[in-house]
Amino acid sequence: MYDTAIIGSGPAGLSAALNLKLHNKDIIWFGSAQLSDKVEKSEKIANYPGLGMISGTELNHRFAEQMAQMDLTLTDRMVTMILPMEESFQLLAENEIYEARTLLLAIGAVTAKGFPGEQEFLGRGVSYCATCDGFLYKGKTIAVYCQDRRYEHEVEYLAELAEKVYLYMPYKDSELNLPNVERLQMPIKEVRGGMKVTELQLTDGTTVSIDGLFCLRNAVAPGTLLPGLSMDGPHITVNRQMETNLPGCFAAGDCTGRPYQIAKAVGEGNVAAHSILAYLSR
Amino acid sequence: MYDTAIIGSGPAGLSAALNLKLHNKDIIWFGSAQLSDKVEKSEKIANYPGLGMISGTELNHRFAEQMAQMDLTLTDRMVTMILPMEESFQLLAENEIYEARTLLLAIGAVTAKGFPGEQEFLGRGVSYCATCDGFLYKGKTIAVYCQDRRYEHEVEYLAELAEKVYLYMPYKDSELNLPNVERLQMPIKEVRGGMKVTELQLTDGTTVSIDGLFCLRNAVAPGTLLPGLSMDGPHITVNRQMETNLPGCFAAGDCTGRPYQIAKAVGEGNVAAHSILAYLSR
Repeated sequence: MYDTAIIGSGPAGLSAALNLKLHNKDIIWFGSAQLSDKVEKSEKIANYPGLGMISGTELNHRFAEQMAQMDLTLTDRMVTMILPMEESFQLLAENEIYEARTLLLAIGAVTAKGFPGEQEFLGRGVSYCATCDGFLYKGKTIAVYCQDRRYEHEVEYLAELAEKVYLYMPYKDSELNLPNVERLQMPIKEVRGGMKVTELQLTDGTTVSIDGLFCLRNAVAPGTLLPGLSMDGPHITVNRQMETNLPGCFAAGDCTGRPYQIAKAVGEGNVAAHSILAYLSR
Repeated sequence: MYDTAIIGSGPAGLSAALNLKLHNKDIIWFGSAQLSDKVEKSEKIANYPGLGMISGTELNHRFAEQMAQMDLTLTDRMVTMILPMEESFQLLAENEIYEARTLLLAIGAVTAKGFPGEQEFLGRGVSYCATCDGFLYKGKTIAVYCQDRRYEHEVEYLAELAEKVYLYMPYKDSELNLPNVERLQMPIKEVRGGMKVTELQLTDGTTVSIDGLFCLRNAVAPGTLLPGLSMDGPHITVNRQMETNLPGCFAAGDCTGRPYQIAKAVGEGNVAAHSILAYLSR
């Protein structure tokens, strides 16, 4: 049992992790070694106090150095489901289960709420995890929504199992090229089916018959990740102490609302860590 | 008329100033060239993301460099009174009046609420500003509470005017030595008088007859500074947008509550600046 599970390796997650580590808490921190994509893609950052004018790449590099100094490590697994227990949280991440007394959601702004039908068919043809559910689609026809280059290896894995893969990527410069993978030229509009998923409708109105849909995104929408979490539109509802409506569950950074700023994220991560320390010492 | 007046040169004030400057707002920023005393005195800071292990002196140095890069300058005057007007705020700072459409209080944690009697006798023998009110005490007997070394030049100025100065300093290593200045060996307990201040009571019960008391502190208590400001104990009440109860008045940093942390302060300064931008563009 960990003291805290942190989900998200952007500035909010880092700020919280630094503080919890300094207080000798036993944490598990989920995120990618590339840290924050959004920071990485910032050309110039001029409004982060203490670093002058800096590029996002440089800032991520500094974050990584600081993590190494502080002996902080990331677990590069995608958390796809969280279950609130009596006095803890169980997290499902690529077929492994982790348990922690407190939880910090620092998952960034999740712009997409998912496709219409996606939540309805979750577990009935819709999956967020190739490693977990890929084997169910051996020899079948599936579609994959691959949001980021970093999930292409999962697409390759799925292509080895499935007979046919329809792939949609919202970015351009991919070199992925496999005989049984067909690129969809139109974005996905809706997932449909009866007891299980049967087809996709694309934005031009055409339909594609499928047995399953994998959505490989940087983040799962918070309400899907953790049922019962109170939301304010696309943002997690928090108070000034960064508490959510669920006891022991805190949130920080872009996922709690605008402004989407690095300084705001590090501030909220710091406050959340202090609230977690108070909660753990009750 | 300025767009914004910022009071306080710690991390919260800096974070706000950077953002407002980037948006080409016309700001007046009150604070000392030494920036934050509290940061300066931090031996090691390990939990500010992006800077590894850093001393407070180094961090203040980096802040100052960034201010120079961004062409941000401080006005080193103590704001002692703020009057909310219809659509703006008037600030009194050492006999000068400044006007701004919005106000950001980033004044740090004000630990002392002042001495009993202090607020009651403000303007009737109690003053916060040697430059403003010193001339009123020519040839008289005054007491001075000097919280910080940086105000010793004001004590010297008052000693030139007054016949006798009773001085209390809450710190040790002062070299101030003037023939008409007598150090009080006990802290001040209460200010007393009738129509005007007549005496101080010290914590050992002894009394000292005086005509006036100067309180030279790093910050004036927020409720004294800006009448009508809603407080939660020693902290300014704010919401997640850093709005206070007074329209156009925002607060950020230690003055809004715990944790007293640099990361929290820069986060709140950033959020306050964005709320100010929204307010100004209404």
